[in-house]
Amino acid sequence: MAYDLWYWPSIQGRGEFVRLALEGGGIPYRDRARDDGAEALLDDMEARQGRAPFAPPYLDCDGLVIAQVANILMYLGERHGLAPSSIADRLWLNQIQLTITDLVAEVHDVHHPVATGDYYEDQKPEAARTAAQFREERLPKFLTYFESALNGADWLVDHRWTYADTSLFQVIAGLRYMFPQRMATLEPDYPGLVALHDRVAALPGIRAYLKSDRRLAFNEDGIFRHYPELDAA
Amino acid sequence: MAYDLWYWPSIQGRGEFVRLALEGGGIPYRDRARDDGAEALLDDMEARQGRAPFAPPYLDCDGLVIAQVANILMYLGERHGLAPSSIADRLWLNQIQLTITDLVAEVHDVHHPVATGDYYEDQKPEAARTAAQFREERLPKFLTYFESALNGADWLVDHRWTYADTSLFQVIAGLRYMFPQRMATLEPDYPGLVALHDRVAALPGIRAYLKSDRRLAFNEDGIFRHYPELDAA
Repeated sequence: MAYDLWYWPSIQGRGEFVRLALEGGGIPYRDRARDDGAEALLDDMEARQGRAPFAPPYLDCDGLVIAQVANILMYLGERHGLAPSSIADRLWLNQIQLTITDLVAEVHDVHHPVATGDYYEDQKPEAARTAAQFREERLPKFLTYFESALNGADWLVDHRWTYADTSLFQVIAGLRYMFPQRMATLEPDYPGLVALHDRVAALPGIRAYLKSDRRLAFNEDGIFRHYPELDAA
Repeated sequence: MAYDLWYWPSIQGRGEFVRLALEGGGIPYRDRARDDGAEALLDDMEARQGRAPFAPPYLDCDGLVIAQVANILMYLGERHGLAPSSIADRLWLNQIQLTITDLVAEVHDVHHPVATGDYYEDQKPEAARTAAQFREERLPKFLTYFESALNGADWLVDHRWTYADTSLFQVIAGLRYMFPQRMATLEPDYPGLVALHDRVAALPGIRAYLKSDRRLAFNEDGIFRHYPELDAA
């Protein structure tokens, strides 16, 4: 079994949720477009027939192609023990991951409020309005939900980490990069999430990954972007 | 086993994807807020502890609470035979449903481009710009993807309908309501999706549902909304 992960090679983006699960679980994979370039990803997308992905990231496992972050993580979770085994726990974990998916979509929309295909620079006044509502209303709503999902425990389910824990780590890391002022204000209200972030960062596979050059830096082509004019305490 | 579906009682919205699977499968359920009112839904949300939903719709099955449309459908699919049994087929179906989730989020954003919490009337100029790009670029991209996923077959997987087929029916019906002019232009390019829509509408459970008063009409509080000023051929 050899996993080929296909995702944009210059950003963390949505692919990072998959990279973190693979790295945390010590699962070997090739990050194909980081080896071969973005052109190789475009060529691969173009060449796929039949059960093709709508967009990256996707995972090719000896010909079984799986797209959509939550779908990939569910597969990895079941196959590699990165998820619990009971049906109730698996549904709960998938539900949390899909709520993270919703949050990530709203984060994306902060920078692309009126036109997914246009640059942030072409929609700055609109983004300022979107960012204000996101900072004030949506962000606390999501954080409150995830804090209560954690329910005072070390991990979301049982006594060991799952893919939704690594995903929540990425959410906290990304939001801190995106809105450092706002997160500084909010974080005291979410001690469970802050502790979870640190607990995930200390997992052996994640610690090694974060120190490696495989971990790309956040940047303004990714999902979580830092535009100082959109942040406020 | 008795299912309680909780969703807003006056709109199709995201809950409709769940209603259609239940109705198509002949699975008994109570649409709780349609019986007891929106206030009952708010009270129920408020009262839930522990593994609570972030937002409606959610399904309460004798105390097992499942939220997120794709998660609910996956559960119903496996439990009631509304999905295939092989792992590859189930992942593929979930992948399509999650791509429908993405489309639905973009549809929502057409009417709420800069502020999820504000009314359409407060963001009309921005919505005009969002709608133009959605009509011209995003909509054909999604339809092309779903047409190719169908791949000339009667159903998405094998020789019988699944929950992703009823979901695609709802997508086509909703888009026709939202953008009648644009869909009239595009539909000749997507004969497979048009035929799938009709095939789902003719399923006994769906046909009975669509004629019943359980099927709400599309309206301007739902996900798919018709604002004539946003449509164009």
